[in-house]
Amino acid sequence: MAKDLVIGIDVGGQTTKCGVVDARGTVLAQTVIRTDSHTEVELFIADLAEALNKIIRESGAEGRIRGIGLGAPNGNYYTGEIENAVNLTWGGSRTIKFSKLLSEAMNGIPVSLTNDANAAAMGEMTYGAARGMKNFIMITLGTGVGSGIVINGEMVYGHDGFAGELGHTCAVRHNGRVCNCGKTGCLETYCSATGVARTAREWLDMTDEPSSLRSLDKISSKDVYEAAKDGDKLAIRIFEFTGKILGESLADFIAFSAPEAIVLFGGLARAKEFLTEPIVKAMNENSLPLWRNKVKLVYSSLKESDAAILGASALAWEL
Amino acid sequence: MAKDLVIGIDVGGQTTKCGVVDARGTVLAQTVIRTDSHTEVELFIADLAEALNKIIRESGAEGRIRGIGLGAPNGNYYTGEIENAVNLTWGGSRTIKFSKLLSEAMNGIPVSLTNDANAAAMGEMTYGAARGMKNFIMITLGTGVGSGIVINGEMVYGHDGFAGELGHTCAVRHNGRVCNCGKTGCLETYCSATGVARTAREWLDMTDEPSSLRSLDKISSKDVYEAAKDGDKLAIRIFEFTGKILGESLADFIAFSAPEAIVLFGGLARAKEFLTEPIVKAMNENSLPLWRNKVKLVYSSLKESDAAILGASALAWEL
Repeated sequence: MAKDLVIGIDVGGQTTKCGVVDARGTVLAQTVIRTDSHTEVELFIADLAEALNKIIRESGAEGRIRGIGLGAPNGNYYTGEIENAVNLTWGGSRTIKFSKLLSEAMNGIPVSLTNDANAAAMGEMTYGAARGMKNFIMITLGTGVGSGIVINGEMVYGHDGFAGELGHTCAVRHNGRVCNCGKTGCLETYCSATGVARTAREWLDMTDEPSSLRSLDKISSKDVYEAAKDGDKLAIRIFEFTGKILGESLADFIAFSAPEAIVLFGGLARAKEFLTEPIVKAMNENSLPLWRNKVKLVYSSLKESDAAILGASALAWEL
Repeated sequence: MAKDLVIGIDVGGQTTKCGVVDARGTVLAQTVIRTDSHTEVELFIADLAEALNKIIRESGAEGRIRGIGLGAPNGNYYTGEIENAVNLTWGGSRTIKFSKLLSEAMNGIPVSLTNDANAAAMGEMTYGAARGMKNFIMITLGTGVGSGIVINGEMVYGHDGFAGELGHTCAVRHNGRVCNCGKTGCLETYCSATGVARTAREWLDMTDEPSSLRSLDKISSKDVYEAAKDGDKLAIRIFEFTGKILGESLADFIAFSAPEAIVLFGGLARAKEFLTEPIVKAMNENSLPLWRNKVKLVYSSLKESDAAILGASALAWEL
């Protein structure tokens, strides 16, 4: 039987999404299981294998699965291991031979894994906005800022498998915000969903400027977005500030790999009506003349509910 | 007859160095011609071809030249053209089909070209400090700061052929120094030979601190190096400052491509006794924990007088 289908798995802190995917990027069947229901990885993998076998049966994919692609925090493409994934209940500081364990549980179907941002970039290259591109940088603007870099048509994994941590490059060198990673001024402390909320709280504290955000107990980036849509001037300026910082950093990334495009993805990218202009302006102002108005800024074209599964599944076509 | 030799050509603003090179990186014969003796590229190429034929005869290389590799300002690997090389007397704002013209003048021997920093990186990978490495970043610390990036064993040229302009990433975001490129705060305004001289002048103006540099009319980075070797405290601190800024930027480059090593080359790299410690310190402090004390900092191992020819020649083995 032709091996014409793949499986994509996106491992998140709370839930793990899985789907059976065909070569056109159609998700034929999908399901979600808890990631945090176990502290032992063997038990999680048993749950996962059961869920996979169920969607394989549902989509008539028995014997047709070419491989399994998986995106997971701290996933190392070279070794197939998940290392130091402290945010996963079964992760901790140890190194888990995840690809090997899952492949064994799935009767030897090969498994390839990487981190979630790299998987997202693979998804865009295989089915999405970066189809046909050989050089692009994907930036995921979610709770944090992740990145996946493609050069000469290949994902960049680096010497150790962990390349592409652009969320932890320095955006603000002096008096920068403290980051979860222990450093200060990291891009993700400004240009993630949490970064936007942080900017809002800082700015509301610093001034008396009227804003609809003042009436909220707890502010999320979604609240700032809703306020901006309602014309709230402070909220709009928060996105201008966020876009400017992101654009400045993107200019430096462009100087590194001269990509055809920057691809933005993630919850915060939904605010593109407010972000695009300041990003492009700062990108141009901080780029060498040869790249001004040359490097495209595009947004993910994958359906949000499918993107994580599709991204992970894209890895499996290489198996 | 076996095509077992290559030619390397390094085009600089004043002079052009050429050599016949074997597979072990031995320069069998070499010569230097003026770059700036003509305003017409055709006349320069006629001079160059004559010089090449001379060293081919001298080294008994007739019929054995596999290809010609060339490093030149604004050389585009993809097109074989030199674009906007305003610092070359025969350059200007036009696009010169240099590879094609030189190949014609040399009876069809194939020519491959790129910019000088990329050529230097190819040289280190083929014959020097980066031999056997598949992922490294070469930084050339000369009059300016250039860079050549190798990922998965391949030079990174990017979408347009001009990737690797790390000298023009932003090292100092606010009140940064004005750069020749028109931007401010570029790495090369601090961490090049001219940057070091600029720091010296600024610091001498700003304070009354005693320093042997005060007695000089015009200060070069070499003067600062000599003063540091003589124990001049200000001069030593200038290198500490330069190394710190470079190390901070290197940490961000590491987050991009997770290289095995950073390779430093160029006149300023001679001051490694003063630069290494502050560079490594800043690199570690600004890197994610997974890269601390993991990424090697190495210096070019090529003989300085041969390095430019060897670098360019390395390109020709791919022909």
